[in-house]
Amino acid sequence: MATIQDVAKHAQVGVGTVSRVLSGKGYVKEETRQRVQASIETLNYTPNEMARNLFFRKSGIVAVIVPDVAHPFFAQFVNAAEMVLCEQGYQTMICNTYYEQNYEQRYLEMLKQRRMDGIIFGAHTVLDISQYENIHLPIVALDRDLGENIPCVSVNHKTGGKMAAEELIRSGCRNVVQFVGIKEEKEVSTPSNVRHDVFEETMKQQGIRCQSLHVKWPTPDTSYYRKVSAKLLEDYPDVDGVFATDLMAMAVLQAAQLHRKRVPEDLKLITYDGTYLIELAYPRITAIIQPIDRLAKEAVHLVVDLIHGKSIQNKKIELQTVLRPGDTTMGD
Amino acid sequence: MATIQDVAKHAQVGVGTVSRVLSGKGYVKEETRQRVQASIETLNYTPNEMARNLFFRKSGIVAVIVPDVAHPFFAQFVNAAEMVLCEQGYQTMICNTYYEQNYEQRYLEMLKQRRMDGIIFGAHTVLDISQYENIHLPIVALDRDLGENIPCVSVNHKTGGKMAAEELIRSGCRNVVQFVGIKEEKEVSTPSNVRHDVFEETMKQQGIRCQSLHVKWPTPDTSYYRKVSAKLLEDYPDVDGVFATDLMAMAVLQAAQLHRKRVPEDLKLITYDGTYLIELAYPRITAIIQPIDRLAKEAVHLVVDLIHGKSIQNKKIELQTVLRPGDTTMGD
Repeated sequence: MATIQDVAKHAQVGVGTVSRVLSGKGYVKEETRQRVQASIETLNYTPNEMARNLFFRKSGIVAVIVPDVAHPFFAQFVNAAEMVLCEQGYQTMICNTYYEQNYEQRYLEMLKQRRMDGIIFGAHTVLDISQYENIHLPIVALDRDLGENIPCVSVNHKTGGKMAAEELIRSGCRNVVQFVGIKEEKEVSTPSNVRHDVFEETMKQQGIRCQSLHVKWPTPDTSYYRKVSAKLLEDYPDVDGVFATDLMAMAVLQAAQLHRKRVPEDLKLITYDGTYLIELAYPRITAIIQPIDRLAKEAVHLVVDLIHGKSIQNKKIELQTVLRPGDTTMGD
Repeated sequence: MATIQDVAKHAQVGVGTVSRVLSGKGYVKEETRQRVQASIETLNYTPNEMARNLFFRKSGIVAVIVPDVAHPFFAQFVNAAEMVLCEQGYQTMICNTYYEQNYEQRYLEMLKQRRMDGIIFGAHTVLDISQYENIHLPIVALDRDLGENIPCVSVNHKTGGKMAAEELIRSGCRNVVQFVGIKEEKEVSTPSNVRHDVFEETMKQQGIRCQSLHVKWPTPDTSYYRKVSAKLLEDYPDVDGVFATDLMAMAVLQAAQLHRKRVPEDLKLITYDGTYLIELAYPRITAIIQPIDRLAKEAVHLVVDLIHGKSIQNKKIELQTVLRPGDTTMGD
């Protein structure tokens, strides 16, 4: 396979010139450009990201920082991100921030020292947000507001929350509960919280009782979800609709079945995220789907653009959620 | 916080001497050793793995290679490995081999060039196994036979398979099916396959009908599991016991419920792996648990030992599986 060096030799120019032709950046005489182009075609040279990265002596490493890679949402996100990063010539480093000892700070340092090319930051930091605000380096946030300098990829949580509320309303709910995730020590500023406000507002407009219960977020501990679900059915025996995320929704479904509550007749259930988990539950849980693979793809493309020096001001990418009807609501 | 340099200065020795005292490797005069020790205590210096790695100018990176990090078993494994690697001062790179384009080859090259300190290799390679056999570098396999040079961490799958068979026998099964995962292109040589032989053998010894159905392994595609499960109940209407792994077991449970088969009365079900998924199913699925966190811990400790130059010959670490009774068998 021809390399960039082969092309340079063949065209009798320096490697830097070939690189300028490939990237389209910097001045190259038209005649030289044509000669390089001809050599590229003759040698059947395929410039790829990997070669470009090696040539520019970048580390070729992008870190994906998530609370907990075992959590199904983040597992799917990291999986998809790794795939796209691989296609783009980057290797993926991961960092879980959920645990007491973690590398978030170190990764920022590595980025500053250029030992890492970029960071995709998936929700919730253990650091002070000011640490991010003043960095002008390739960082992209997933579902988190890290200030004006840092582009953010998320779904439109406003529509997402409204979709969930409307599906429970169509199903005839009069007394609903939603679970709102919080991190114990400090509040997480994430656009995803908007869905809870919209959900509650939509319910109240219809005169429907709506309670918001705060739960730990996101814990890898399934026994916690089971405990909370059991308590929900004890403390709120009249609840007829629940809005949760996947792990909690699975636990609520299990608790309802243990308590011989009929789903959806006695209890309607709608989940947010819609990871693969939900498709294996019985009955199938109605879900507001986040397009996780597309979120990952957008995040990777943004971080690669930043690495390539493109300037991105105030960029917010918002994808749409989709309602996937299951057997735990009766929307139509 | 005191650094290794501070200690060296205080004890009036070179950094190399402090390092030799810390690692216990190489010769240091007894008098010097005592002086260094005193300086370490005076300055309250805590030698940690991270400092050691930085000092030895290692990359500090360990790669964890898995088929698919979205798969619950591998998600939990990678999560646990990242946590222990972080404690040990290493950063975690990940590589999914399931996809057509992947970095397995490149990671091996990076290891050879010392741009990476070690690799934890989680089952199934897309490369020829000979690529691994001749490498004398820090590689540890999870559940995979990569030749004599490469230590392997796994559970005792023989006992695991026997446990599963005996639980279904105790539950009164007469006609069982087990799902055996294969990779389409080539057979994977993994010690985990032993469980299927033992399962079948144990069944046949008792005169119980046992069929082994081959399925793709491990696909992130849940619709595949649902299709296979539906077909199972059509093709084998008399099956009264199923042995599967978590995703397939969830799908079989769902299919049974859709077909109004009573579990466990009409159909008994036992799963292998026992990831968090299983705890959220209803009814709770009886499981042969692999201690995933401990597998990760052992793999990390082995790879760190290898990085530190310890020689490990023919090392196989086998942990024990545990039967966690659920409501899908009637073992007692």
